[in-house]
This record gives sequence, C-alpha cells and structure tokens, in this order.
Amino acid sequence: MSITILGGGGFLGLKLARRLARDGQVGGRPVEALTLFDLRPPPAPEGAPFPVRSLGGDVSDPAAVAEAVQPGTRVVVHLAAVVSAQAEADFDLGLKVNLHGTLAVLSACRALPSPPRVVFTSSVASFGGGQGAVLPDDARQVPENSYGAQKAMGELLLADASRRGMVDAVSIRLPTVTVRPGRPNKAASSFVSAILREPLLGLPAELPVGEDFAVWICSPRRAVEWLLHAMGMDTAGMGADRGVNPPGMSAKVGDMLAALERVAGPAARALVRRAPDPAVAAIVGGWPAAFTAERARARLGFSEQEPLDELVRAFVEDDLEETRRDRGL
Amino acid sequence: MSITILGGGGFLGLKLARRLARDGQVGGRPVEALTLFDLRPPPAPEGAPFPVRSLGGDVSDPAAVAEAVQPGTRVVVHLAAVVSAQAEADFDLGLKVNLHGTLAVLSACRALPSPPRVVFTSSVASFGGGQGAVLPDDARQVPENSYGAQKAMGELLLADASRRGMVDAVSIRLPTVTVRPGRPNKAASSFVSAILREPLLGLPAELPVGEDFAVWICSPRRAVEWLLHAMGMDTAGMGADRGVNPPGMSAKVGDMLAALERVAGPAARALVRRAPDPAVAAIVGGWPAAFTAERARARLGFSEQEPLDELVRAFVEDDLEETRRDRGL
Ligand SMILES: NC(=O)c1ccc[n+]([C@@H]2O[C@H](COP(=O)([O-])OP(=O)(O)OC[C@H]3O[C@@H](n4cnc5c(N)ncnc54)[C@H](O)[C@@H]3O)[C@@H](O)[C@H]2O)c1
Ligand SMILES: NC(=O)c1ccc[n+]([C@@H]2O[C@H](COP(=O)([O-])OP(=O)(O)OC[C@H]3O[C@@H](n4cnc5c(N)ncnc54)[C@H](O)[C@@H]3O)[C@@H](O)[C@H]2O)c1
Repeated sequence: MSITILGGGGFLGLKLARRLARDGQVGGRPVEALTLFDLRPPPAPEGAPFPVRSLGGDVSDPAAVAEAVQPGTRVVVHLAAVVSAQAEADFDLGLKVNLHGTLAVLSACRALPSPPRVVFTSSVASFGGGQGAVLPDDARQVPENSYGAQKAMGELLLADASRRGMVDAVSIRLPTVTVRPGRPNKAASSFVSAILREPLLGLPAELPVGEDFAVWICSPRRAVEWLLHAMGMDTAGMGADRGVNPPGMSAKVGDMLAALERVAGPAARALVRRAPDPAVAAIVGGWPAAFTAERARARLGFSEQEPLDELVRAFVEDDLEETRRDRGL
Repeated sequence: MSITILGGGGFLGLKLARRLARDGQVGGRPVEALTLFDLRPPPAPEGAPFPVRSLGGDVSDPAAVAEAVQPGTRVVVHLAAVVSAQAEADFDLGLKVNLHGTLAVLSACRALPSPPRVVFTSSVASFGGGQGAVLPDDARQVPENSYGAQKAMGELLLADASRRGMVDAVSIRLPTVTVRPGRPNKAASSFVSAILREPLLGLPAELPVGEDFAVWICSPRRAVEWLLHAMGMDTAGMGADRGVNPPGMSAKVGDMLAALERVAGPAARALVRRAPDPAVAAIVGGWPAAFTAERARARLGFSEQEPLDELVRAFVEDDLEETRRDRGL
C-alpha cells in the first residue's frame, strides 16, 4: 500500500510518519511506499522498512500535489492547512491553502486509476456551540471563524466526491490536540497545551480562563490512532455522511491541572498562574466543549481517548526531550 | 441604490428585473441603476425608471464579475448557477460556476468601498431528509447531489465573509419554484411544474410518483418577494447564521392536481397520466418535503406562500401567454 501525507512535516504528520515507519503496516496491510509533502521537504522517519520520498511544494498548486499523489497511491492523508489564528489573520491565505488546497488534492486523486482513501482533518472549530453545548452527531456546522468555515467547505467537497466515487473520504473533526509540543503561540487555544507543557519543562504558564472552563481535547497519540483507523476502515456504512466527530474528551481546565499535579507534583502545578484574558475566553468559549460522538464510537470503531493522567505522561514519554532540545532548554 | 443581478437572464432573474422596473424601489429606497449579467447580455426590462446595463460574461471570471459589480453597487443578487441535473452530469462545470463563481462574486464585492448586501440563492437540494422529514431551522446540510454540496459551500463562504464584514449576505434556500414556465426538462423535479403547466397549455403530462408524494415548493411570485425582502431587510439579528429556510409549502401532488382542476376544470386534470418512474421517485424522494421555517417566519419577516389555487392562477396570469408564444403553441 502506497501512502502520501500532505502536510507531512507538521506536528501530526511527523508523528504519523514515525508510527508508519515503526509499524510497517496499516490495518494489516503492509506499507510499500510513503511520500511526505510539505512546504519544505519533511525529514524521513528513521528506520522505515519502505522507501520514503520527501517533496517540497504548495498544496494549493495542483501540479505539485499531482507529483506527490502518483499512480499507485492508495491512501492520501491530507493534513496540510493554515491553522485557525493564521486563517483569521489572512483570509486569502486561508482560502488558498484550506479551500484551494483541498480542491487540488481532489484533482490529483481523480487522476488516479482508482479512487484512493482520503483522510481529511477537519476541526471542532467548524462548530459553534460554547461551554454549555453537548453536540450530537447531526449538529449543524455554523463556524464562527474562517478556518472552521474552510474546513467545513472541504468536508462538503470530499463528501460529494466520495458519493461520486472519485475518492473514498473520511473527515475527522479533531478536538484540540493536547499536549502540543513546541512553544506557546498566538492561537487562542495555545493555553490548553501550555498549562501542561510549560510546567513539565519547568517553566511558568498563564491560565486565561477559570478552572471550570471545559475544552474538547484529545492526545496526539489518540489523534494518530484515529488517523490510522480512518486510513484502513470500511467506509461502506457511512453513506453520504463522511464527517466524523471522534470520541475525544471534554476536560475541565481544573481537572487537567489536577492530572498535572498527580504526574509531576505540586511544584509543577504551582507554575500555572491565573491571568484572566476575556478575549481568549470569548474565542475559545465559542467552541463546543463536548460532543456525544455516538456514531464514531458505536458504529465506526474509533477508539476512546485515554484518561488525563495518561495524556500528561504521554507528553513526558513522547515529546518532552525533543521539545527541550528544540527550545534550547 | 445601485443593484446588480448575476444570472439576470434566467427564470427568476428576469422576473426580478421586471419587478424592479415596475416598482422603481426596494424596501422604500429608490433604485438608481440596475446591472444585469448573464452568459449572454439579458434583455433590459421594459419601462424601467432607471438606467439598465446588460452585460455578458462568465460568473467564474473575476474580471467579468468585477465589471458587473462596480463601485456604488449596494446590492448584488447572485442567481447565476448551473442547476442540479447539469451539476450532476458535469462535476467540473458545477464547481466552476457554483463554487468558483461565488468566489469571484466575493472578490468583486471586496473591491467595493463598503460591503454590499449579497442575496444568494441556495436550495432545498442542499439537504437530505426525504418524504417523512420536517426539517427544523438547525437541520444539518448533508447534500446528496453536487449542486446541493456546491450551494452549501457557497453559503459557508458568504456567511464567513459576512462575519468578517466583507459582505452582508442572506442565503435563501429556495424550495422547488413552481410553476416554472418553459418546457419539461431533464431535471428530476421537472414533473412538479409540468403537471400544472402542461395541462394549462392543453398538453398531456406524466406523473412519475404517487398522489401522496409531497414536495416543498414556492411560487415564482413568492420567490421574487423573498428576494426583494432579502435585498432590503435588516440582517443585524442573523448572527453567524446567514442561511434562511423560507416559508414555502409542503404540497402533495394530489393537492396540486385538485387545485389544477378547481382552476382549469376536469379536462385539464385529465391530461395528467400516471407513469411511475422509480428513478425520479428515488431522487426527488431524497429531498426533504417539509421545513418548519420558524426563523424566517417569526424573526426574519419572510412572507408566507400563497395557497395552491393562487399559485396555479398566478401562472395563468403571469406566464401562460409568454410560454405559449415561446413554445410556438
Ligand atoms: N493540532 C490540532 O489541535 C488540530 C485540531 C483540529 C484540526 N487539526 C488539523 O489537523 C491537521 C494537522 O494538524 P497539525 O497540528 O499537525 O498542524 P501543523 O500546522 O503542525 O501542520 C500542518 C502542516 O501543513 C503545512 N502547510 C501549510 N501550508 C501549506 C501549503 N500551502 N502547502 C503545503 N503544506 C502546507 C505546514 O507547513 C505544516 O507542516 C491540520 O489540517 C489541522 O487543521 C489540528
Ligand atoms: N428555480 C428553482 O426551482 C430553484 C430552486 C432552488 C434554488 N434555485 C436557485 O435560484 C437561482 C435562480 O434560479 P433560476 O430558476 O432562475 O435558474 P436559471 O437556470 O433559470 O437561471 C440561472 C442563470 O444563470 C446563468 N448562468 C449559468 N452559468 C453561468 C455562468 N457561468 N456565468 C454567468 N451566468 C451563468 C444561466 O444562463 C441562467 O440564466 C439559481 O441560483 C438556482 O440555483 C432555483
């Protein structure tokens, strides 16, 4: 099975590529070749038992994507995106990458002799709702940010193309993936990872919302499991609806901090300082904090998010050293 | 107030232009200029008390649309579309006109000194549901046809652009507009108008579904009223949700035929022959047959569909002669 990861140099793309290199297979089928594509050629994962091509290019350039999705490709994981803060700051860039990029992915897939599985990462940000909401599977997407709107448009495009037999798409509406390694950034949701990551690095972090504030999250490990599941699953039962609300976790900030304290002690917990920021609370407070995720759980076989302590420990095991090194700490 | 109608040479565009020429105003504000744009320059309505420009061009060509949406334009009515059967037969044409066309409309609007009202015509075909369904206002759009998917994408784009203050959009999800003048065509919904229009012309018509089959319809008069309302209404209360399910009518085919008989006599009714067509029943049977349309009625001021007898008589008054002439009858 030949696989292409678009956006393969990003947070989840790199993790998925490493996992493929380790496992050598997806859903029992051996990986025969992997293409990684991003703005700059991504590093190949170490020790892969299959050839890896690394390509640089723009996902909104149909020729570049066609080069990355060559005949024989069975699975395209489309992660390339301009994320929320950037798409909000630069509307045209968001449209170019998130909408025209997805159109270019579809074009490349249609040129293949048979329709490939396309795994697309949509987002919780494609919904409104807010703190009180528990969104059912048929909740309407009324996005209140450009990134979410563009993701919802991509979902519609890929669902229609699936109905027509051009591709065989699964769109996973990922929760806020936590703990994200790296540095705090300008994303409104940056604090969700920062309040765990920074103390684990021995650094202070600011909490812009109250401890009762709830967020819909999943771990990077869980996100990678879901991508792998979506790459191999049977889509026959999905019908016209190719969008999946996966079984993430609705976590209160206070519970996340309690898990931090259990894993890393009270000194780590004490590094988090309350610094109310109504602007951040307003943005993140507009995102739904919980989903029922019935269909993903009961019918589509998506696995459950692990408990918070495990989510914190997974960052320590998987990402702490690398983050320390990358940040020169 | 300066107005542009894109797709101004089509069924509803021509009717709207005539109505503007007759009224000379919208929502109490005088029309100062009208631009009609379509693949070929549309005919100017007779007796307009304002200048009319007629332009030919492709709505997916940003330069052509920019020419049609000049500085000073306050309202853009975007009707240009490849309709359902054609968008299903030619996926690329549908994407070009229905998606890239709407992108070009947005580009042209962003070049204006202040954000114009954009009235976009989405469709009942952007929903699934079927005969049993009564769709609430927050029903999710899971289209089962490319036209509906492309319309839903256009809605997302224009809602986001409205949130950003680039345009001020209202997207009306029109029911099947009945009675449509002209000839029977290959659209699966063609019979909905044909079973009234053909007998009124003295011609036979075939009914592919049973008399209990229900359809969500509105008259051309009502569709034009809704467009006029959307051109002038206050959008302040709409929030992020710029989509409107207008108060159409869920009509059983048997009730439509009874109205035909009341208006035109049993001889007209007798021209309709039952000719079951499971393929047509399957397609049209997937569209929702009813909506609650609460928000449009109670909060947004959209007017009610008139009763069926009036819908039939309106065709006789407004369109029968012209249809006869156009078809050489
Ligand atoms: N991480 C999350 O919390 C989260 C939540 C919901 C959805 N998602 C989605 O999951 C996917 C992966 O997320 P991530 O956290 O790994 O994001 P990321 O930003 O780390 O990775 C995205 C990659 O896309 C690449 N990219 C951007 N523009 C490109 C272009 N024009 N051409 C080619 N490549 C381009 C970037 O260089 C980056 O490597 C994205 O689609 C994201 O929108 C992520
Ligand atoms: N009539 C209905 O039952 C109905 C129902 C739901 C939605 N709608 C929507 O309402 C709008 C008007 O409907 P209508 O019945 O008047 O349709 P119509 O087909 O009569 O008119 C559409 C017009 O768009 C023009 N057009 C097509 N491609 C174009 C292009 N590339 N560039 C410029 N113009 C182009 C056509 O020439 C035509 O004149 C459409 O957007 C349609 O999708 C109609």
